Amino acid sequence: MEFRSDVSVELVKHNARDFDVAMAARVSTIGAEGLDLNLPTEGLINFLMRDRHGSPFEHTSFTFYIEAPIFVVREFMRHRAGWSYNEESGRYKELEPIFYKPADGRPLRQIGKAGKYQFVDGTYQQKRTVSGDIERVSTEAYTTYKRLLDLEVAREVARMVLPVNIYSSFYATCNARSLMHFLSLRTKDETSKFPSFPQQEIEMVAEKMEDFFHFYMPETWVAFQRNGRVAP
Amino acid sequence: MEFRSDVSVELVKHNARDFDVAMAARVSTIGAEGLDLNLPTEGLINFLMRDRHGSPFEHTSFTFYIEAPIFVVREFMRHRAGWSYNEESGRYKELEPIFYKPADGRPLRQIGKAGKYQFVDGTYQQKRTVSGDIERVSTEAYTTYKRLLDLEVAREVARMVLPVNIYSSFYATCNARSLMHFLSLRTKDETSKFPSFPQQEIEMVAEKMEDFFHFYMPETWVAFQRNGRVAP
Amino acid sequence: MEFRSDVSVELVKHNARDFDVAMAARVSTIGAEGLDLNLPTEGLINFLMRDRHGSPFEHTSFTFYIEAPIFVVREFMRHRAGWSYNEESGRYKELEPIFYKPADGRPLRQIGKAGKYQFVDGTYQQKRTVSGDIERVSTEAYTTYKRLLDLEVAREVARMVLPVNIYSSFYATCNARSLMHFLSLRTKDETSKFPSFPQQEIEMVAEKMEDFFHFYMPETWVAFQRNGRVAP
Amino acid sequence: MEFRSDVSVELVKHNARDFDVAMAARVSTIGAEGLDLNLPTEGLINFLMRDRHGSPFEHTSFTFYIEAPIFVVREFMRHRAGWSYNEESGRYKELEPIFYKPADGRPLRQIGKAGKYQFVDGTYQQKRTVSGDIERVSTEAYTTYKRLLDLEVAREVARMVLPVNIYSSFYATCNARSLMHFLSLRTKDETSKFPSFPQQEIEMVAEKMEDFFHFYMPETWVAFQRNGRVAP
Repeated sequence: MEFRSDVSVELVKHNARDFDVAMAARVSTIGAEGLDLNLPTEGLINFLMRDRHGSPFEHTSFTFYIEAPIFVVREFMRHRAGWSYNEESGRYKELEPIFYKPADGRPLRQIGKAGKYQFVDGTYQQKRTVSGDIERVSTEAYTTYKRLLDLEVAREVARMVLPVNIYSSFYATCNARSLMHFLSLRTKDETSKFPSFPQQEIEMVAEKMEDFFHFYMPETWVAFQRNGRVAP
Repeated sequence: MEFRSDVSVELVKHNARDFDVAMAARVSTIGAEGLDLNLPTEGLINFLMRDRHGSPFEHTSFTFYIEAPIFVVREFMRHRAGWSYNEESGRYKELEPIFYKPADGRPLRQIGKAGKYQFVDGTYQQKRTVSGDIERVSTEAYTTYKRLLDLEVAREVARMVLPVNIYSSFYATCNARSLMHFLSLRTKDETSKFPSFPQQEIEMVAEKMEDFFHFYMPETWVAFQRNGRVAP
Repeated sequence: MEFRSDVSVELVKHNARDFDVAMAARVSTIGAEGLDLNLPTEGLINFLMRDRHGSPFEHTSFTFYIEAPIFVVREFMRHRAGWSYNEESGRYKELEPIFYKPADGRPLRQIGKAGKYQFVDGTYQQKRTVSGDIERVSTEAYTTYKRLLDLEVAREVARMVLPVNIYSSFYATCNARSLMHFLSLRTKDETSKFPSFPQQEIEMVAEKMEDFFHFYMPETWVAFQRNGRVAP
Repeated sequence: MEFRSDVSVELVKHNARDFDVAMAARVSTIGAEGLDLNLPTEGLINFLMRDRHGSPFEHTSFTFYIEAPIFVVREFMRHRAGWSYNEESGRYKELEPIFYKPADGRPLRQIGKAGKYQFVDGTYQQKRTVSGDIERVSTEAYTTYKRLLDLEVAREVARMVLPVNIYSSFYATCNARSLMHFLSLRTKDETSKFPSFPQQEIEMVAEKMEDFFHFYMPETWVAFQRNGRVAP
């Protein structure tokens, strides 16, 4: 049994530069042939972001390999437009005994009304109980899963006992526009024009994805930030 | 604690008739104004299905309210194009103690190679163990969930211990084209041109959806069946 | 030859009420069964719009039958997510001699820089020339088209001479969310949070669509307006 | 004035190999970590194509720069799922005087019933008339367009007189799955399981795209061909 409190996000491959956005936008105005490749792209990208011309950002791609618990994967895959997925299947393979457990500092109490929740630190008792309960239930569930497999019960049936904190893994491919839409909803940031209240565990995934986005498309990222983190 | 072996599919509302398909198709050829409303639609619909003119089938809508275990919901929501969803949230409400347990006749053993699995009846021992284990693990998980809530742990944390056989509920809206695509992948049928191997529990949902489809769009359903259950 | 300066938008059918939005949203929080049907929907809808919970707005549908010149149809059909189309085909039918000509008051001069164009009234000479030239070129093109058809040239070849101001007609089906996205980009409004600069002719289409939207989903429309005409 | 009888398709960039498909598929079964990178991909890809597991083909991208007449662009952009576009705008730039004219060998006569058209060679008179008429109408339209611009009429108004055989240019980004779907509908091929009747001019675009697809993803192309040119 392995208990983790983190998520992994690996960039498998990408084809995404600020330059791609500028090229696509210029097709609209001067045609690709007349393009001066040395023109600065920064101002153009900021203009596109501000006036919400989103389509030039779509001619880019990022493929991520992500490991996260099922309750995170379920939220993630609600993002449809501009996303492609392939996930590990509990029907085709035996699942590994890796489970999520909140880190010690993860706030455990929720205060306030729906849509405006605030989270605060757990008490000592809450922390100890959450940690112990999650370990116990996960272990018991996985032991049962293994026993059912040993009895030659089909994987698709045996898996029914596994809890949503078991890790899954998946490929996710998106473009810069669909990625910004995801980030606008799955991170919370003081500077956002529209506030979001993501669960901390999906925000952990989003932050790692944003690092790659920031690194490979720095001008697009700056424009996204400057314009209130609203996807164009 | 409640254990169910079935799924529910309720048709909340619909706006879908064979006639809508014919109308949309005729816009392409003779314009909506010149349309003879008394023309038979059956031959036209069969022609569209056979030659894979899919767009006329999209001007229809079905909204379903579905109750099914999470492992089914996860497969269901992989269908993106032409689908809209709203699901019960474990962050916003306390989940009910309703869990899926295979019915007595549900085949439990899997034979053969990936992509060609066959399922056969479980032995007496398998049946008894599956039933007992699922009841025990579900009960233990839910009891733990409730204790964590009683300790004022946030719902989004407490739910991590719940297994994927707990029931969820959701609204799903689709059109006749996206519905046929779903049916072609989530049912198995001797007459299908492309064989599928859905898990029995999602097929149970699909069959109930197909009943509504058959009832409200009988000519489209017949053409779907006659043309090998391939979505146009 | 017929010259029109307007567009037509007919609501073929719809399945869209404010109530549908509220129902779908409530599935997330209290389950459909526990729903008090008498609860006011207005506040809930405003909350969803403000916090950009877009999915509940998708369980609705509008089917429009639209007549507009090709240069408008081309812009319209760039809207993909949540839209379905069937358009009159110049390959399958002979096109009617109906052409768009700007009305007398349509501004003809464009002032300012890209992205910030302003339009002002045409001079007398401009008005006369535009009107005369469009009539002449359209008539000459259509006469040529007919002669080619009389010579038994295929429709798909003959149509190549027709200008983009010829009218086409199409079915368009959308949901309230995709419709609001369309309206936010294809109308200009003082109160919009994000300014748009649509061509007047597509705005004429958008305004007629908005009338239907306003009529059938008044609370959703008010919330859209109050929140800066940004699609959730 | 320039008259062309061809189309251009340039591959701007791509991130698409057979290997990507195999990697994504293996995540479902053995996890990305345990992957033997030396396994042959050919059999796996053929299996995915045959059993219509389409999602692994989506983790790839092709960006094309295409020049084609407007009547082709209109058909092209009806492909929505998995496609992104940026097109030259007649509102933002002055359009070039480049027009499509069928090549001498282009069949001009259409025989048979809707859905089953056959095209045969034009007579000498048809060829001469088509060629002359297209040149004349295009030239007259463009001359008018230029005169209106000289009078300072807005580009978005002046362009209304231009015929649908004028060339436009656009960026199109897709993945291997959406590309195969396009090819299955926009080429005709003796070996296709589902016959299509594309207009010759869009087929010319499709064939050039297929060359790139064939070159960069040879095993996927072979599997596509072998399985009746049906997109998975």
